[in-house]
Amino acid sequence: MTYKNYCVIMAGGSGQRFWPASRKALPKQLLSIEPNVTLIQATLARVPKNVGPEQTLIVTNASQVEALKLQVDLPDENIIAEPAGRDTAPCIGLAAKIINHRAPDATMAVMAADHVITPTHLFQADLSQAMEFAARKDAIVTLGIQPTEAATGYGYIHLGEEVESSLHRISAFHEKPAKSQAQQYLAAGDYLWNSGIFIWPCQRILAEIDRHIPDLAQGLDLLAPVIDTQEFGEHLEDIFPRLPKISIDVGVLEHAAEIYCVKASFDWDDVGSLAALARHNKQDALQNTVLGEVVVVDAKHCIADNRAEGLLALLGVEDLIVVRTADAVLVAKRGQEEKVKELVQKLEAEAKDSYL
Amino acid sequence: MTYKNYCVIMAGGSGQRFWPASRKALPKQLLSIEPNVTLIQATLARVPKNVGPEQTLIVTNASQVEALKLQVDLPDENIIAEPAGRDTAPCIGLAAKIINHRAPDATMAVMAADHVITPTHLFQADLSQAMEFAARKDAIVTLGIQPTEAATGYGYIHLGEEVESSLHRISAFHEKPAKSQAQQYLAAGDYLWNSGIFIWPCQRILAEIDRHIPDLAQGLDLLAPVIDTQEFGEHLEDIFPRLPKISIDVGVLEHAAEIYCVKASFDWDDVGSLAALARHNKQDALQNTVLGEVVVVDAKHCIADNRAEGLLALLGVEDLIVVRTADAVLVAKRGQEEKVKELVQKLEAEAKDSYL
Repeated sequence: MTYKNYCVIMAGGSGQRFWPASRKALPKQLLSIEPNVTLIQATLARVPKNVGPEQTLIVTNASQVEALKLQVDLPDENIIAEPAGRDTAPCIGLAAKIINHRAPDATMAVMAADHVITPTHLFQADLSQAMEFAARKDAIVTLGIQPTEAATGYGYIHLGEEVESSLHRISAFHEKPAKSQAQQYLAAGDYLWNSGIFIWPCQRILAEIDRHIPDLAQGLDLLAPVIDTQEFGEHLEDIFPRLPKISIDVGVLEHAAEIYCVKASFDWDDVGSLAALARHNKQDALQNTVLGEVVVVDAKHCIADNRAEGLLALLGVEDLIVVRTADAVLVAKRGQEEKVKELVQKLEAEAKDSYL
Repeated sequence: MTYKNYCVIMAGGSGQRFWPASRKALPKQLLSIEPNVTLIQATLARVPKNVGPEQTLIVTNASQVEALKLQVDLPDENIIAEPAGRDTAPCIGLAAKIINHRAPDATMAVMAADHVITPTHLFQADLSQAMEFAARKDAIVTLGIQPTEAATGYGYIHLGEEVESSLHRISAFHEKPAKSQAQQYLAAGDYLWNSGIFIWPCQRILAEIDRHIPDLAQGLDLLAPVIDTQEFGEHLEDIFPRLPKISIDVGVLEHAAEIYCVKASFDWDDVGSLAALARHNKQDALQNTVLGEVVVVDAKHCIADNRAEGLLALLGVEDLIVVRTADAVLVAKRGQEEKVKELVQKLEAEAKDSYL
């Protein structure tokens, strides 16, 4: 028995946390965090070999399509531009509806465009196991990540019984926990991070949406007749912004009867902030991570990203993140990189639109 | 009795200590340290009213003439471009020779182009007293600055008897002292900083050069016949680079029989490093000095100079000096600004000529 497999890459994002390198029209997934490849290019390169470009979709937003197309080589009809951000359930529902139109028996994997995952072959093996299981059992499957710290920024998955090697029934989903709760999860050992990578037959997820988010299902049904026609874009513009804004986790997964989880065997990093540059690039003897033309005198434990024409010089500083682009420079204390969002909001409030 | 007064502004400098704002072709004196005016423009504005543009000379170096002429409005023949830097004695000797050709009875004041002096009227009063005394007594006069700290970066003047109000005979010059020596000078109370502002009749300083630096005098004599002719530039190119490289302090002042000093009544700052930006510009409530388009979130005691197109953002940092220009950015720890020279030397060693 063969299965028709599709991959859907969710590539939205507001481009705040990597400012000034990231912008609304150039979000994180279009930047290089690892050397020589952007996040979305690396994501595409990880798609299993049996899923070709015709079976690979990217859902992005309208302002990012142009920059995206410079980086990826997919059929135009496989790049879907959301007219407005409506969280993950409408995004996934739309992709499922399109795939279901093209291949009614397909199994789809959904993944983010902005994770760093290594090595590729372990990811592909885990994903293949999940897709095969999802198709065979008509099941909803996620990939769960072994926690390395008591992180409060992720949802957690409580594993139930092992159904086959490294594949468990899920006993519960937990939203982002408080620190003390996260510490308990870490100590317990049978909790994994929710990677946001989901695998299911298209018809199964559409049926779940029918059942649990009927407003969304109705909107998608209105779009179904025009998929892959000239009128699709116009209808999408009209209907999509009015779809309910809800995540797939809250809208479907919390209500679904049975969900499975493959314990990931790969390393995973969701590249949450500029600090990721240090994790995925070489460091000098004084723990400086230097990208582009940077002159360093007596600096240590700094991240200096100058992948633009021109020069950046550090003198006697430590624990800084400095990012220089053609039109802007950020100088931030390491450990404060989460506040970059606050800074971008200040730029928005001050209507400095050319920097957003 | 009236005196013909000339002012000579020495505007050389290698443009290192204010990098990246300063460059070889755009040294410190062509930058704004105070708001709205460059150092050389402020220096020209301080020249006493009885010294017109015809009596004001600037001695600079060839690479800086172009940028200089954009900022100042003087007759072309009053902007002298040294073909090579030979320290202050050849610079002053050349200016004296030119002035002596144009007005043999003139008194000249020599001053640097890169000091911040306030208020102007006190400077002008002190300078007028010095010029009048120099002309009347055929004397060498300096302006001495009341020390505010035990600085080791200046020469010191030991005052002798007071000859007239605030005007003393000098009992000795002392080179830049060690810290403990500087502390003794400060405690003693009768030591002033040597400002490098000198006043003398042209013929007196030329006679001193004849006596104490005969090689220099001979070179200047070769130039005398072509002053204010078409051939001057060509002869200068030939002769000037071969003049002895020596300061006026070492070459003349240490040997001259009698030198006087006017105790300055003005505030004086030699703008030695980027830290000067904080002394001459407003600060916000968190002691940040901000020039140009800068967004500040949780930063304190920083100097942020972004007088270029584009944006600079500081986030959670303290005690930094950040200077952004069109093609380069410096991020330095406050207190390490002296090492900017070291950084520029590194750029030179790495042949990054476009940034020098």
